[in-house]
Amino acid sequence: MKKMILLTNDDGIYAEGIQLLGQALFESGAGYDLAIVAPNHEQSAVGHAITMHRPLRVHKARFLHNPDLVGWSVNGTPSDCVKLAVEAILPQKPDLVISGINRGGNLGTDVIYSGTVSAAVEGIILGIPAVAVSLMEGGTEKDFKYAAAFVRDLVPRLLENSLPQGTILNINVPSDSEKIKGIRITRLGKRQYMNSFDRRIDPRGEVYYWLAGELVEGDEPEDSDVQAMLDGYISITPVHFDLTNYDYLPELEKLLHDLLQK
Amino acid sequence: MKKMILLTNDDGIYAEGIQLLGQALFESGAGYDLAIVAPNHEQSAVGHAITMHRPLRVHKARFLHNPDLVGWSVNGTPSDCVKLAVEAILPQKPDLVISGINRGGNLGTDVIYSGTVSAAVEGIILGIPAVAVSLMEGGTEKDFKYAAAFVRDLVPRLLENSLPQGTILNINVPSDSEKIKGIRITRLGKRQYMNSFDRRIDPRGEVYYWLAGELVEGDEPEDSDVQAMLDGYISITPVHFDLTNYDYLPELEKLLHDLLQK
Repeated sequence: MKKMILLTNDDGIYAEGIQLLGQALFESGAGYDLAIVAPNHEQSAVGHAITMHRPLRVHKARFLHNPDLVGWSVNGTPSDCVKLAVEAILPQKPDLVISGINRGGNLGTDVIYSGTVSAAVEGIILGIPAVAVSLMEGGTEKDFKYAAAFVRDLVPRLLENSLPQGTILNINVPSDSEKIKGIRITRLGKRQYMNSFDRRIDPRGEVYYWLAGELVEGDEPEDSDVQAMLDGYISITPVHFDLTNYDYLPELEKLLHDLLQK
Repeated sequence: MKKMILLTNDDGIYAEGIQLLGQALFESGAGYDLAIVAPNHEQSAVGHAITMHRPLRVHKARFLHNPDLVGWSVNGTPSDCVKLAVEAILPQKPDLVISGINRGGNLGTDVIYSGTVSAAVEGIILGIPAVAVSLMEGGTEKDFKYAAAFVRDLVPRLLENSLPQGTILNINVPSDSEKIKGIRITRLGKRQYMNSFDRRIDPRGEVYYWLAGELVEGDEPEDSDVQAMLDGYISITPVHFDLTNYDYLPELEKLLHDLLQK
């Protein structure tokens, strides 16, 4: 059986990033099947939301650059798309989930809010290796194509080598492909936001708030994904979802020892 | 300055769990201020979503059991509530975020989808220690009151002892409080779902899908949160959001060594 790649994103199936990556994978001739199942509209900052209280619908979506390339659009979140693709739409379990290429970086704590990353995480929850790919803000078509070619060339290696269970690769590509210096294996940086809320008054005299997060420049470890972007390197971070803090278990037992003895 | 606790949830501010926990904390007489900021309606399985594309509004919400207890309802997700409370509503930075009591357990991989947990995670992103509390399905008012008293009694200890950076406590309470045998420090279990989608045809002949996840009974480690519920113990798991898989970094460098040398 031919291997199958499931491609999804959170910007929606008609976004430039997934269209160009779909095209690059389709053209690769590397002998795998390509399935594209993605949201029907932008889903940024949805985190790992899933849709339980309304029905999901699936429609065919043609790709702009290539009438032979057909995808499926879903009225749901990136996680919904992966779940639905694997459990209801695809004829076989995919061998790799690729989420992206997102417009805008997913660095540091971004990964907690990121729909792009959550789609990859849904892959590993279902036992499928997965990568999330993002291009920093400001990238143009040329840069998306560069990032798409990078992923296309990485795919055979990912299909041949198993990633550790519960771990995705989170890939970020600097926006200006002409200035890229190389590739770094990184860890998640800090990437802190100053989450100021704009307090405003609506035409009826009622208060409302807009989230207006601004990046705070801070000290970043040299080996972080954030620093890799600043230095002009593609960043690849292994991100795991084994969330138990094992190191802290003994201390917590000490803190609660009297309760545990009851 | 008096210490302040921020209470939130994902079932909405009028849900039994937050109302009874609010009441218990309010009555504790432990000398802290209590601020309640929660969604105006149920937000289950929203994951760590944040609202960027529409304005947030805040309204006063009275508590049913106690007219002196006032909260704030927000037309947003649990993460929105914590962000907005800390950055725009409260007069001081809270010393502890408590999210719950959720109706229904948040065990194992549930924590990735859980709005209850995401509110606590928002706390630690903002540098505030945080706990998430859930009561297993089937709990009645009596059981919520038991869980609320448990949290109330835990709070002074949490205000006095710092949790490790980036780590929340995820607390689950068995539904039948009369049969609780004690407390266990646990790790996250597997808690796998069979995500069957119901495929149906609507009155206009169109296909739609309902997510119909069913729990799969599987082998659980003895020290998991899932097993603690089965055995009748309150479970406390330290859950961290330092998501870099440090252990895998050397192997990934080996896997990509030729790319890194470019």
